[in-house]
Amino acid sequence: MPSRFELANAIRALSMDAVQKAKSGHPGAPMGMADIAEVLWNDYLKHNPANPHWADRDRFVLSNGHGSMLLYSLLHLSGYDVTLQDLQNFRQLHSRTPGHPELGYTPGVETTTGPLGQGLANAVGMAIAERTLAAQFNRPGHTVVDHHTYVFLGDGCLMEGISHEACSLAGTQGLGKLIAFYDDNGISIDGEVEGWFTDDTAKRFEAYGWHVVPNVDGHKPEEIKAAIEMARTHDDRPSLIICKTVIGFGAPNKQGTESCHGAPLGDDEIAAARQQLGWPHPPFHVPEALYGAWDATERGAAVEQDWQSRFERYQAEHPELAKELSRRLKGELPSPLSSEKLIQDAQEKAETLASRKASLGCLNALGPQLPELLGGSADLAPSNLTFWKGARAINRDHHDGNYLHYGVREFAMGAIMNGISAHGGFIPYGATFLTFMEYMHNAVRMAALMNRQAIYVFTHDSIGLGEDGPTHQPIEQLSALRSTPNLSTWRPCDATETAAAWHSALHRRGAPTALVFSRQNLAAQQRDKHQLADIQRGGYVLKDSDDPAEAVLIATGSEVDLAMQAADELEARGKAIRVVSMPSTDTFDAQPQSYRDSVLPPAQRKRVAIEASHRAYWYKYVGLDGRIIGMNSFGESAPAGDLFKYYGFTVDNVVAEVEALLAE
Amino acid sequence: MPSRFELANAIRALSMDAVQKAKSGHPGAPMGMADIAEVLWNDYLKHNPANPHWADRDRFVLSNGHGSMLLYSLLHLSGYDVTLQDLQNFRQLHSRTPGHPELGYTPGVETTTGPLGQGLANAVGMAIAERTLAAQFNRPGHTVVDHHTYVFLGDGCLMEGISHEACSLAGTQGLGKLIAFYDDNGISIDGEVEGWFTDDTAKRFEAYGWHVVPNVDGHKPEEIKAAIEMARTHDDRPSLIICKTVIGFGAPNKQGTESCHGAPLGDDEIAAARQQLGWPHPPFHVPEALYGAWDATERGAAVEQDWQSRFERYQAEHPELAKELSRRLKGELPSPLSSEKLIQDAQEKAETLASRKASLGCLNALGPQLPELLGGSADLAPSNLTFWKGARAINRDHHDGNYLHYGVREFAMGAIMNGISAHGGFIPYGATFLTFMEYMHNAVRMAALMNRQAIYVFTHDSIGLGEDGPTHQPIEQLSALRSTPNLSTWRPCDATETAAAWHSALHRRGAPTALVFSRQNLAAQQRDKHQLADIQRGGYVLKDSDDPAEAVLIATGSEVDLAMQAADELEARGKAIRVVSMPSTDTFDAQPQSYRDSVLPPAQRKRVAIEASHRAYWYKYVGLDGRIIGMNSFGESAPAGDLFKYYGFTVDNVVAEVEALLAE
Repeated sequence: MPSRFELANAIRALSMDAVQKAKSGHPGAPMGMADIAEVLWNDYLKHNPANPHWADRDRFVLSNGHGSMLLYSLLHLSGYDVTLQDLQNFRQLHSRTPGHPELGYTPGVETTTGPLGQGLANAVGMAIAERTLAAQFNRPGHTVVDHHTYVFLGDGCLMEGISHEACSLAGTQGLGKLIAFYDDNGISIDGEVEGWFTDDTAKRFEAYGWHVVPNVDGHKPEEIKAAIEMARTHDDRPSLIICKTVIGFGAPNKQGTESCHGAPLGDDEIAAARQQLGWPHPPFHVPEALYGAWDATERGAAVEQDWQSRFERYQAEHPELAKELSRRLKGELPSPLSSEKLIQDAQEKAETLASRKASLGCLNALGPQLPELLGGSADLAPSNLTFWKGARAINRDHHDGNYLHYGVREFAMGAIMNGISAHGGFIPYGATFLTFMEYMHNAVRMAALMNRQAIYVFTHDSIGLGEDGPTHQPIEQLSALRSTPNLSTWRPCDATETAAAWHSALHRRGAPTALVFSRQNLAAQQRDKHQLADIQRGGYVLKDSDDPAEAVLIATGSEVDLAMQAADELEARGKAIRVVSMPSTDTFDAQPQSYRDSVLPPAQRKRVAIEASHRAYWYKYVGLDGRIIGMNSFGESAPAGDLFKYYGFTVDNVVAEVEALLAE
Repeated sequence: MPSRFELANAIRALSMDAVQKAKSGHPGAPMGMADIAEVLWNDYLKHNPANPHWADRDRFVLSNGHGSMLLYSLLHLSGYDVTLQDLQNFRQLHSRTPGHPELGYTPGVETTTGPLGQGLANAVGMAIAERTLAAQFNRPGHTVVDHHTYVFLGDGCLMEGISHEACSLAGTQGLGKLIAFYDDNGISIDGEVEGWFTDDTAKRFEAYGWHVVPNVDGHKPEEIKAAIEMARTHDDRPSLIICKTVIGFGAPNKQGTESCHGAPLGDDEIAAARQQLGWPHPPFHVPEALYGAWDATERGAAVEQDWQSRFERYQAEHPELAKELSRRLKGELPSPLSSEKLIQDAQEKAETLASRKASLGCLNALGPQLPELLGGSADLAPSNLTFWKGARAINRDHHDGNYLHYGVREFAMGAIMNGISAHGGFIPYGATFLTFMEYMHNAVRMAALMNRQAIYVFTHDSIGLGEDGPTHQPIEQLSALRSTPNLSTWRPCDATETAAAWHSALHRRGAPTALVFSRQNLAAQQRDKHQLADIQRGGYVLKDSDDPAEAVLIATGSEVDLAMQAADELEARGKAIRVVSMPSTDTFDAQPQSYRDSVLPPAQRKRVAIEASHRAYWYKYVGLDGRIIGMNSFGESAPAGDLFKYYGFTVDNVVAEVEALLAE
């Protein structure tokens, strides 16, 4: 029987070999955390390598994602479909072993990590998802949702602000099945952290209400094991196990220094490490006895089978619940969902109201049909209007809710939503002001990169928010969202388009959507049934002229009604004008060329875009010959009406611009 | 002599009246913190209302900036040029009293606040600036730099992640003259914070190494005073005074609830509050006796005069130092600064090197001439190459440095840089990977909004960083930067343009600049003296054809050399090609129309933009008839060469695209 040290050394050897072969990567963390990982994975982790999608598996997150070879080694050794060849292709194009763990590339990778601190917040999201799902579906005598979430993290994660946001909330929520392992190696890229990071981390986490196991020797399996046992007994709050480790453990000349953090060790040092560790095997060779000891496939099959049997008993006793749980876990929407009817209803009602308020109406209508909605706001519920009438707060005493008061924690909200989405069983939505999207943009990006459904409610979408002034008025944010690959962005012009935007976001199962709503009232627009259907195309002709249009006005959100009024005035002056409403540029771009050309005829270059947002993005639609009525500067603090006038969002100015363009 | 309570009630009355008149705003925080502010401003704050720019004044930051009427009331009452009329114009267009405090709008406002947590980080920056400047200029017997930084903050600031980053660093640095007041009122917008914010904040800050004064009754002046005394005696570490307060104190029916946080109290409640507070005066009326007691102009003139006398003695004994300090405080660059020569030298050397390495060369050359440079990196110094040979780390024992190891704290870095810049005496620069600009974007935006000089070094600027993969590869970040008003962004193509970018950033005294550098090597480009001079115009013809160009290639950074190679190949095939290098689109846009037309002739529509960044931005320059070779998706993990090939950044593909365009 191999020793634990030998088992851990298999990770060390594979990690240093793969980094060396790739000529880049991070050997330090895998070598430093190998002993911790060995104990956790061999003695505790509940998983089935043959079925990485088994719903009730424990979740394992490597928040210090640069140490990806640790995870790839674990997956390989324990029996996932990650081969030696895959490890040898570390960091190569389209390999299963990219530089950082990426969801969807590698069986067993639960979330994409690398941007520091976010994996930790993802893990908080997974733990929330597990506890909420358990509360919704477990029944006396039937525990079908019941797993831990384990997360590894380093100094970098703990320095990042998001660690504060996520862990403060995790403490308040009392997430007892979340267990974090801090790789306390005293080293970051700039060197010894004592020059810039001197927190008493145990005390900090106690202040958050966590259970802390301090001073664990991260190279002594029995201490690690005792710490995990203690953590598992504290089920009323999350646990942090602080493991003192040596970065690059085993590399005799580089361990304990930043030199082994982010670069290959080099052939000489690797040879010396083999000596030091007593690892006589050639590169990428692991003895069979070690593979045998690591292999988790048999145990994995058994635990999943046990769960399967329990699920069948649950199914027998609670057939409707079991069916619903299966639907939720498969990520299928309930059928029928009335979101299309909602669009029609809104069109018929023709109400003048703020799109944030129309959004609340959508939530009130669809929420009862969608128990998988798990909403929230970063302490702006009364402004974002996200706490719908069926919303029930989740807290440490009431797990069976559907709404998180995230507090003023935008970035953690975004990353927690990613964790909830990656866990499965929920559609997360979360809200803040559009400007403060910036606080969480990298989490939005991560949802897009991971192909996760997440719905962002970004209200107060322009200078139209008025008196709060330029710190709160978005200018460049829409450009940033629209330039984020795989993110869909909607800025509806009225209640009908708002319903269409929610419809689209809910049906966009494998990617995130940003819903951008106004603070102020928006007039309802008239549409025939073709126009109503075409909203789903992201851009459509809202008003056309009888004669071929001399100019096309393109607008979104609150500026659509302005475009319509200007078109009326221009028509009164004898001009033939088309108005295009373009609530979602990315959706429009995805339409067939023929449709796009029918909306924006290629030869028609007299185009004017109108949006109270940064101008630059609109050249894409008006080109070098059109005009853009937009923002080139920050806003000001004043009543909204004064601001729209000051920045030229008036019928007079639009008419003047169009007439000037027609006169060119 | 009016009582302290009456003095504080003047703030309360003005705040509720102004919010009511504006029909929007936040009365809760001003009414809750009035007593604290009264003690601090009347008994401790060292300032001169007649000269808000006096260099050695204490700095006061309202991090909970929504409580702006607190600050405006204080400025008005203590004698700044903020009139009753200004207060009556609260939140109106171009008033001195915008919705949130904004630097440059109101005498006495030290920094723009509103985005929560950032004011606190600004204050950390101010305290660092003060201590560093003191170390650089004070001499035995001469203390010419010696002031406190006070900051008010609320629950929202403390929930934000940036509070962790900034306060952890402040503790490590031991910033003894930073004193923070926490408005512990238990209320945020969603309601009572106990549902989402249960930190033991005293313990948390002790974990950061702060001195904490807990459990102060924020409505008892003697307790507040005792706390400030204690804080001032602890000069080896920052102090947090935790003040228990009642939000909206004095409004009998709304105080202590979220209903008084962010909306006018209403006429009835204001009348009731007047009754409750014993404030019989009409709206916007403060009795003369109270004005007299608040007036700080006489005391202010005296303390500044005392400092002036001390400065004159310093000047007599240390004339060179005094001259240098005056230069630094005025924000003048040393003369002559050799940055233009650096551009020429780089052109002559014609070295092939990564622009991040060329940037280090600029720092090494210019650093010795610029003692005001205060650099740093968010734990990426060896990658960003920002720790130049004259860099000396600032820490709790060594104050006389010029470099901050910020740790992995991008957002705090950005906001601390803003505080350093707002304090005066320094030019801050700070670095991270371009992708992680997103973690700090809102601080970049705040620098732009505040017209503060700050220089960002964003390296690893594209898929060219290679194996670290899509989490680290910027796609949408350049669009976000270029769409941020008042920010200048440079992406140089070689060492020469890198020097030009640094030259521009250093001379851009009233606004921030983002310098975007490659990880990988870049070939040197040839230029004649006109081309060399035109780099400063942001875009220029790097290579022209003898015949009128059939097509124009526009590129930046690492794609310029690709464009040049493609142009050579196209020329060999008989095409006349112009290549435009466009390192700074905003700088180019600011040139006269005639110059821009000379570079990009309006009639020449066969334009191809090439940049390994999101495509959408480039329609601005190529319009509807050109082509864009850019990114539409996230990247991948692979060696850089493989990625450039995979995404079409090859001579063959550029040639093919140009030929296809010419064939249209």
